[in-house]
Amino acid sequence: MRQRELRHFFIQKHPSGGDRMRELSVELSAESDRPLYEQIYEGIKKEIIRGNLKEGERLPSTRYFAGYLEVSRSTVELAYDQLVSEGYILSEACRGYFVCDIGELCDLEESDVEKKTERMQEKTKDTVKKRQEYRYDLSPDSVDLSYFPFKEWSNITRELLLDQGDRLLMSGNPAGDENLRESIAKYLHRVRGVNCRAGQIIIGAGNEYLQMLLSQILGNRQKIAMENPTYLPAYLTFKNLGYEVTPVKLDQDGICISSLEEAGADVAYVMPSHQFPTGVVMPMRRRLQLLSWAMAGEDRYIIEDDYDSEFRYRGKPIPSLQGNDRLGKVIYLGTFSRSIAPALRVSYMVLPEKLLERYRERCGFYASTVSRILQNTLYEFMERGYFERNLNKMRRIYKKRHELLIDCLKQCEWCRDIFGEHSGLHLLVRTDPKLSEKQILEGCGKEGILIRGLSEYDITKKERGKDPVLILGYGALKEEEIPGAVDGISRILR
Amino acid sequence: MRQRELRHFFIQKHPSGGDRMRELSVELSAESDRPLYEQIYEGIKKEIIRGNLKEGERLPSTRYFAGYLEVSRSTVELAYDQLVSEGYILSEACRGYFVCDIGELCDLEESDVEKKTERMQEKTKDTVKKRQEYRYDLSPDSVDLSYFPFKEWSNITRELLLDQGDRLLMSGNPAGDENLRESIAKYLHRVRGVNCRAGQIIIGAGNEYLQMLLSQILGNRQKIAMENPTYLPAYLTFKNLGYEVTPVKLDQDGICISSLEEAGADVAYVMPSHQFPTGVVMPMRRRLQLLSWAMAGEDRYIIEDDYDSEFRYRGKPIPSLQGNDRLGKVIYLGTFSRSIAPALRVSYMVLPEKLLERYRERCGFYASTVSRILQNTLYEFMERGYFERNLNKMRRIYKKRHELLIDCLKQCEWCRDIFGEHSGLHLLVRTDPKLSEKQILEGCGKEGILIRGLSEYDITKKERGKDPVLILGYGALKEEEIPGAVDGISRILR
Repeated sequence: MRQRELRHFFIQKHPSGGDRMRELSVELSAESDRPLYEQIYEGIKKEIIRGNLKEGERLPSTRYFAGYLEVSRSTVELAYDQLVSEGYILSEACRGYFVCDIGELCDLEESDVEKKTERMQEKTKDTVKKRQEYRYDLSPDSVDLSYFPFKEWSNITRELLLDQGDRLLMSGNPAGDENLRESIAKYLHRVRGVNCRAGQIIIGAGNEYLQMLLSQILGNRQKIAMENPTYLPAYLTFKNLGYEVTPVKLDQDGICISSLEEAGADVAYVMPSHQFPTGVVMPMRRRLQLLSWAMAGEDRYIIEDDYDSEFRYRGKPIPSLQGNDRLGKVIYLGTFSRSIAPALRVSYMVLPEKLLERYRERCGFYASTVSRILQNTLYEFMERGYFERNLNKMRRIYKKRHELLIDCLKQCEWCRDIFGEHSGLHLLVRTDPKLSEKQILEGCGKEGILIRGLSEYDITKKERGKDPVLILGYGALKEEEIPGAVDGISRILR
Repeated sequence: MRQRELRHFFIQKHPSGGDRMRELSVELSAESDRPLYEQIYEGIKKEIIRGNLKEGERLPSTRYFAGYLEVSRSTVELAYDQLVSEGYILSEACRGYFVCDIGELCDLEESDVEKKTERMQEKTKDTVKKRQEYRYDLSPDSVDLSYFPFKEWSNITRELLLDQGDRLLMSGNPAGDENLRESIAKYLHRVRGVNCRAGQIIIGAGNEYLQMLLSQILGNRQKIAMENPTYLPAYLTFKNLGYEVTPVKLDQDGICISSLEEAGADVAYVMPSHQFPTGVVMPMRRRLQLLSWAMAGEDRYIIEDDYDSEFRYRGKPIPSLQGNDRLGKVIYLGTFSRSIAPALRVSYMVLPEKLLERYRERCGFYASTVSRILQNTLYEFMERGYFERNLNKMRRIYKKRHELLIDCLKQCEWCRDIFGEHSGLHLLVRTDPKLSEKQILEGCGKEGILIRGLSEYDITKKERGKDPVLILGYGALKEEEIPGAVDGISRILR
């Protein structure tokens, strides 16, 4: 072929009578990265877009054009095929190739495309608040991963990939792999008193995803009652899913049953074993009242979010509400976000049999949102005992932090009251009301201390006139950092 | 302490005047697996549940009870604490511990709990159709993973876990990690002609999850037009999300614009580069008409599902519709299910700027559904060139299968017409109408051949009177299996 030069050839006009001589330029280069057929394709496409080749015009035959360009005939055929596929030209049997009507394509010039491409260079604007920028991270959802057995986890993943990779990359059970669901069912039964078969467990990538599934199982006409204050992502998810959400007040035993009755809700979303953010533990009597509420209506359900019951520092964990439910009224939600790590993205729900039926009918076709490699790594991690060993280790570590934090706080004059401290990875502190909660949080922020305030979790958004309440998380706070962090808060509150 | 014997002690009645002597049995054993405090806790709890201890009765003081049981006082304190937490008893300052009103708890006997537990033993009923049971798997969504570079993938995961595990297990950007989104943006631009910044890309665990997000971004009041036949999971997902879905007919160029106009839809869901299941490729003119349709209404959008455009056997892939969209009308959906594996569960969508705003406002708080370890493994897999190398290898392998399958089919009398064969991992065959499509599929099933028929994907569910059309996937079919599979089909159709 001839290199780096403009090629001209003649083309015959169609379908009007006489043939007309036309020029078409195709730039070919043997040194280009692009294959020859692509260069021919691009050249013709450009001519069509520019309007130099018009609807109905016939392209030269592949044989003639190949000879003219000094390339093989199949190269030209490939270019024509591509143009046919994309609808620039069409092939008519025994007659040849003709330019199609491409309408307003003409104004889609390359320059335009390039202009848009520039934006690709732009940096992602998304600004995610960086926790690393704070000196002390006391947010309630942080965990400490420095003790995690990465090597063991990674060895399991490796074994699985090399031994069963091709199996584990093919679609599995939509509800989650059976082995992992069996392990979770056993764990929940033993540790949380949950009564379920593995078949009732649905694994999903995070609680919000499971809420999205639930909304398809329950429908979204229901009214959902939520404890106020509550876990905001769950609230926002229900709102996004089109639910009417009614805040229900909490007393020292958890959700107020009389307020729940008044709310006229169909579904109650509660955290009985450790309410977020208040730390309230619902006593048995209130639990039974709540179950009675649910039993009073056929379509009433309780969603029990048991998000961090693994961490309890005195006595054994309080059994789940689901364990007391005999009529299939409780939907149990759990997660590995606290017990392993937030970015693992493995949550699970236990559906009562009636809802399980609906899940199968309506949602049974959704492939699991958790990769099977991850599911099976987690299964082996649990079966080989790493999961509980790691939990026990972390419980000891968090317990020390918990005790030290309380010791330090007790020495502070501004610390009026500590509550919600029996489990989880955070506690609450009522301070004296010289400064507003907002002022305290802002002041701490400037000192490089990330903390949250109770009123941030109030879904009614009513300004609280009461004493400020700080939420102090110690999941990510090393023991040696605790005195410094408390001192920092003291500087603001002095 | 004394071992293995029943312990009796006296308890004082409260609040009525005179104290009454009462008996309470707590069985303690030093050989038990359970810690002493738990045995005490269980003993008292049982008595409360059985109604032997009634509301208002006072428990012995921790000091007295510890002395009586010959255990340390802190052991009894722990047991009481647990009972307090669970709401069986309450502590009154300076007065002691009292039994709470536990209402109808009495009928929650242990036997009841055990009965439920039996069900746990039951095998999971979920019946997932097992592909392995078929001799030949010609379903259109299968891929071949036997060539996948598991070792390289596993090495990357290992490196990441050991070097940055603690970072990668903490929450990342909700839309997906920036590095992976940059890689996808570059890849899409180069290979699919998609014009976007990385910031417009949202990574999610599967297309259905992204549809769930989209429904929250768009709202679900719209009417969605879908090509008929279409990809059923997408259709069912929209139905589940509460959308009105209107089927729109297809001609040889794809979705009919006049029918689309008539449908009065707001959103059109299309697969322009390779329609599933028909294999139709939408030519440029139709694409521009479709874009014009979208431009005619402010809230009109096109969802472009570009699910398997990676596999095209002649010429280069046809650029995306999104690449021609200058007004932000196209929502682009892509997946690694075909290019890597179905159970990887990584999909992505490219949002126009206007919808990106809405995503940030409404859905910005959802943590990514894809674990960061997986996201970063995929990023390295792409950056180190494994992704494209693997794709190129698979394209060659699939191409050979594609050619051999066509060769075999052309020798079959029953094969009237082959179409939709230019890309993807399946093709369509029109057979002679001696047998109905259903009869053919059932016959093949009995022969151990898994195939699909075109009418299975018809969302209007109208019985087609026309010739049966078979969908033959060759993703999971080894070259050496192809003649046998075609022979098997021939035995049914002879």
